[in-house]
Amino acid sequence: MTSDPLGDAAADLVAERRVREMLAQDAASAALGIELTAVEVGRAQVRMTVRPDMVQGHGTCHGGLVATLADTAFAAACNSRGDGPSVAASADVTWVRPAFEGDVLVADAAEHVRSGRTGVTDVTVRREGDGEVVALFRGRSVELRQLPSPGGGA
Amino acid sequence: MTSDPLGDAAADLVAERRVREMLAQDAASAALGIELTAVEVGRAQVRMTVRPDMVQGHGTCHGGLVATLADTAFAAACNSRGDGPSVAASADVTWVRPAFEGDVLVADAAEHVRSGRTGVTDVTVRREGDGEVVALFRGRSVELRQLPSPGGGA
Amino acid sequence: MTSDPLGDAAADLVAERRVREMLAQDAASAALGIELTAVEVGRAQVRMTVRPDMVQGHGTCHGGLVATLADTAFAAACNSRGDGPSVAASADVTWVRPAFEGDVLVADAAEHVRSGRTGVTDVTVRREGDGEVVALFRGRSVELRQLPSPGGGA
Amino acid sequence: MTSDPLGDAAADLVAERRVREMLAQDAASAALGIELTAVEVGRAQVRMTVRPDMVQGHGTCHGGLVATLADTAFAAACNSRGDGPSVAASADVTWVRPAFEGDVLVADAAEHVRSGRTGVTDVTVRREGDGEVVALFRGRSVELRQLPSPGGGA
Repeated sequence: MTSDPLGDAAADLVAERRVREMLAQDAASAALGIELTAVEVGRAQVRMTVRPDMVQGHGTCHGGLVATLADTAFAAACNSRGDGPSVAASADVTWVRPAFEGDVLVADAAEHVRSGRTGVTDVTVRREGDGEVVALFRGRSVELRQLPSPGGGA
Repeated sequence: MTSDPLGDAAADLVAERRVREMLAQDAASAALGIELTAVEVGRAQVRMTVRPDMVQGHGTCHGGLVATLADTAFAAACNSRGDGPSVAASADVTWVRPAFEGDVLVADAAEHVRSGRTGVTDVTVRREGDGEVVALFRGRSVELRQLPSPGGGA
Repeated sequence: MTSDPLGDAAADLVAERRVREMLAQDAASAALGIELTAVEVGRAQVRMTVRPDMVQGHGTCHGGLVATLADTAFAAACNSRGDGPSVAASADVTWVRPAFEGDVLVADAAEHVRSGRTGVTDVTVRREGDGEVVALFRGRSVELRQLPSPGGGA
Repeated sequence: MTSDPLGDAAADLVAERRVREMLAQDAASAALGIELTAVEVGRAQVRMTVRPDMVQGHGTCHGGLVATLADTAFAAACNSRGDGPSVAASADVTWVRPAFEGDVLVADAAEHVRSGRTGVTDVTVRREGDGEVVALFRGRSVELRQLPSPGGGA
């Protein structure tokens, strides 16, 4: 993409600091024990251990929480550029196989395309150890002009 | 649909008991404070209050948790028939507007079509009070022949 | 929604003229024999007969053409308001059952939510006669400020 | 993936013959001028020129026909294995930028995951020449036990 490896490394460091600051404010991801394990410009990796309080009525990890892990990875990748806050406008989730209590789930997000203020970022959630794919998440991002507030617009 | 209102009422009572039993085992929904407020055959309503630990780095409810609420409504509607455990194979989520700490979110799920062991169930998440739509979730269900287990197949 | 039935009827007539003008320019829908059968503000119905040249290698109507019929219904519903050209940014399609040569497919589109310049419109494609659902299409619209041109932006 | 390049090459030739036979029966793709340009096991590439009769009322290629091109690429990739006829159960389409009359569109499909009789295959549609992404398509396949027939089940 570029012939400036030092510039790339610097950009990645800035991206990482930006994403760590955002996640430091993310009480929801913290409550689920989601940790950021890697960031580059346009890419991020997060992980989560399936706890007993994440299991649903069929004995497997609640699909919504798998999607939440993926959505945090998505947000980290989308907001790594610092162009303004990006949020998911919509997403498509495929649950490939179930995850169980004690499984460590690793979500890798990579921006796929960008066009103007919108983009598409793909996330793959795998089970650590055997590397089996647990879920695929494709999110469509939109860059906001300002952060939403309770009395404000959409 | 039928000319037997008493039979319908009985079927709805059976559906409600079945779904309450499933949710009694759902530690994930319980941890998020998700409550079941209504069930009929093929339909369910659940609600959740956005707590401080559900807010992400942009100051709004984590989109994954909105999807988790919708997914619980989906699971309640899909499993109301008692034909065997149904799970979401995939879903499509549109986040229409943000939700904030203190908002009460109400998710209504209704089965839209069924064909063989698969179906499509739509969920609308609204904010209590003004009734504004927060998110739309369309899930595709598949009825399993048995519950998944850690050593078992998909 | 309103207490002005005459005003509604007039708005529907304007919507119908607007959509008919748009479809008069739509060579793609014409080539597929897609006809507009009803329009109201925010709603539209179109139909198409499955011709021999619409069948794919498995002997059923090409799923892409079922989606094309749904997309035309979507465009008709989204552009019925006259607020500016609306296009689909993304869509989710579920093929419920196959359609065969000679089947008449009817697609009903209805706007579900709108927020700012975006909206969600649902389309159901049914087979005429038995009314069986062939496909569900959920499209996310965005209202453009101007029509796209080959040398222009997105 | 394997240490048997000759075996791979042979498998790819078999895959290509299988897909060419399927497409020889695909009147819909033929009517749209869709050509198969490459096949390997689990992958396929097709192309289509945007003709005047593929343009809709806003002056751009009908989004449904872009999806149809992607769906043909999807079908070619999914049916390259010869395990039984595979069809799309659902798909998610993102239209990134418009295509215009005369554009040549190239769709590359690659199977992403498989689990049992289901799979996820991603398709990217690009404009030949500048290589700009026109659309992304993610399809979920299901392998049928037999081809559908008009009087048969789903």
